[in-house]
Amino acid sequence: MTADQAEQVSGLLKAIADPVRLRLMSMILSHQGGEACVCDLNDAFDLSQPTISHHLKVLHQAGLLDREKRGTWVYYKAKPEALSAMNTLFATAGRQPS
Amino acid sequence: MTADQAEQVSGLLKAIADPVRLRLMSMILSHQGGEACVCDLNDAFDLSQPTISHHLKVLHQAGLLDREKRGTWVYYKAKPEALSAMNTLFATAGRQPS
Repeated sequence: MTADQAEQVSGLLKAIADPVRLRLMSMILSHQGGEACVCDLNDAFDLSQPTISHHLKVLHQAGLLDREKRGTWVYYKAKPEALSAMNTLFATAGRQPS
Repeated sequence: MTADQAEQVSGLLKAIADPVRLRLMSMILSHQGGEACVCDLNDAFDLSQPTISHHLKVLHQAGLLDREKRGTWVYYKAKPEALSAMNTLFATAGRQPS
């Protein structure tokens, strides 16, 4: 891993290293088509809508989520390319002899 | 992902969300047997030995690394169980339809 790659991945990890944002990412990833309506995400948490919106904005700005407005609602989708570098790092651990 | 799991994983992610610590983890994981001597890690970075030691200590305290003293040197090994929760989360992204 080069210093540049490490800078990039650490930015993504900092954005996701929060319990609410982790659960939001996990929920979006496990949704049909890897996409979730902000209305479903609001319903799933015992938090105010502005708080959920703030966390989604952080994930979006970090490049982890795409967002698209369709009709009344905004839909969020994980960006697989942003996660692939993290995936590669952690997947290595599973291949180590114990 | 439950709230408890999210708390646990976010602690691990906060520990690893730093460029130097990411490169240390990556280096240890890619070493023979998933284990590296602190002497090799010191040589690989243009940073002081106390700085490297500090970063290794953070990773150790977060539960990402095991450490063992053998002779003069300390050896660090990644803990696959600590990484598996992160791995599961990010691997999901690769299975999403694009």
